[in-house]
Amino acid sequence: MSSLPPSIQNLVDHFTTLPGIGPKTAEKLVFFLLRTPPKDLHDFGAALSHLADNVTLCSQCQNFTDKELCAICTNPRRDQGTICVVADPLDLIALEETHNFRGVYHVLGHNINPLEGITPNDIRIRELVVRIEKESLTIKEVILALDANNEGEITSLYLARLFKKYPVKVTRIGKGLPQGSDMEYADSITLSNALEGRREI
Amino acid sequence: MSSLPPSIQNLVDHFTTLPGIGPKTAEKLVFFLLRTPPKDLHDFGAALSHLADNVTLCSQCQNFTDKELCAICTNPRRDQGTICVVADPLDLIALEETHNFRGVYHVLGHNINPLEGITPNDIRIRELVVRIEKESLTIKEVILALDANNEGEITSLYLARLFKKYPVKVTRIGKGLPQGSDMEYADSITLSNALEGRREI
Repeated sequence: MSSLPPSIQNLVDHFTTLPGIGPKTAEKLVFFLLRTPPKDLHDFGAALSHLADNVTLCSQCQNFTDKELCAICTNPRRDQGTICVVADPLDLIALEETHNFRGVYHVLGHNINPLEGITPNDIRIRELVVRIEKESLTIKEVILALDANNEGEITSLYLARLFKKYPVKVTRIGKGLPQGSDMEYADSITLSNALEGRREI
Repeated sequence: MSSLPPSIQNLVDHFTTLPGIGPKTAEKLVFFLLRTPPKDLHDFGAALSHLADNVTLCSQCQNFTDKELCAICTNPRRDQGTICVVADPLDLIALEETHNFRGVYHVLGHNINPLEGITPNDIRIRELVVRIEKESLTIKEVILALDANNEGEITSLYLARLFKKYPVKVTRIGKGLPQGSDMEYADSITLSNALEGRREI
């Protein structure tokens, strides 16, 4: 039997559903929250409900937004002719943090993953095709920025083949040694990729 | 500039206030939540608000509860004559998990900590004194279950001295080698405590 009052146990259970948070951590978080002002708790609770009610997918790039179109798609300073395709909204955030990409995005939601039963029909490829067909005069390049693992590989190959019939350049982000890494500790696939991806300096 | 929509950034900020959760983890948690059904999000939010509105301190033992008296204080099978004094509600939970204590508790809320400016007046010692004076016929033993560090030591000594004038036995939980530990790796204070705490077998 749990010795916690129901209100506390209930919130602990909710925190335990989050990834990486076990029952012990959840208890610590809730007991921390018990010491914060009630107003902050209400605000936190309202922010959660607000998320459920207000966040939707951008009708163009399929990223999360609380408007019809997201802030990137409506930004006049972004190049609508270059679409960077990512699997996950967190990948988009990682790219935005480089401050090095001024195009727009398309979020697939997931990589193709045959083992988990995720087929091309389960991810937002159709929306990307419609987008390319509709704006074929504007869109010049599709950059595939997908994970450097099997699933990312499969998805990249699938998309590259799919877009062959459109007059659009399809590129893929570079592979090689990550910044700060030692040659001697790099695995052979990374080194092969780095060799293949060599550039003149 | 953050590339997150306001509804998402707002919830990320709330998660970031929690101990051990940085901006990156908070983002991960929120993007995980974005994939859960809206109903679960509303329930989670309601659980947070419920915590603010319903959880209060037990008028007897000062533990968190959502009633006037907590489930332990009102349990007729608990021995009201033995009070175990703890600093924190999480310490109480740890003791309950031993299933080895059938008395009741008193939660101080904190140890005395001169360095942080926490004096005996800042923790719930007064409530404990009132309780002992009011129920002097019932209460036979006060067990001090405070941390085995400087603050716990100061608090234990303060309480032991304070209760000298009352006809109540004051004890302190044992110190020594923790279960599963090796003699050779134990520090000298732990070993001294273990020697002092030796018992006939």
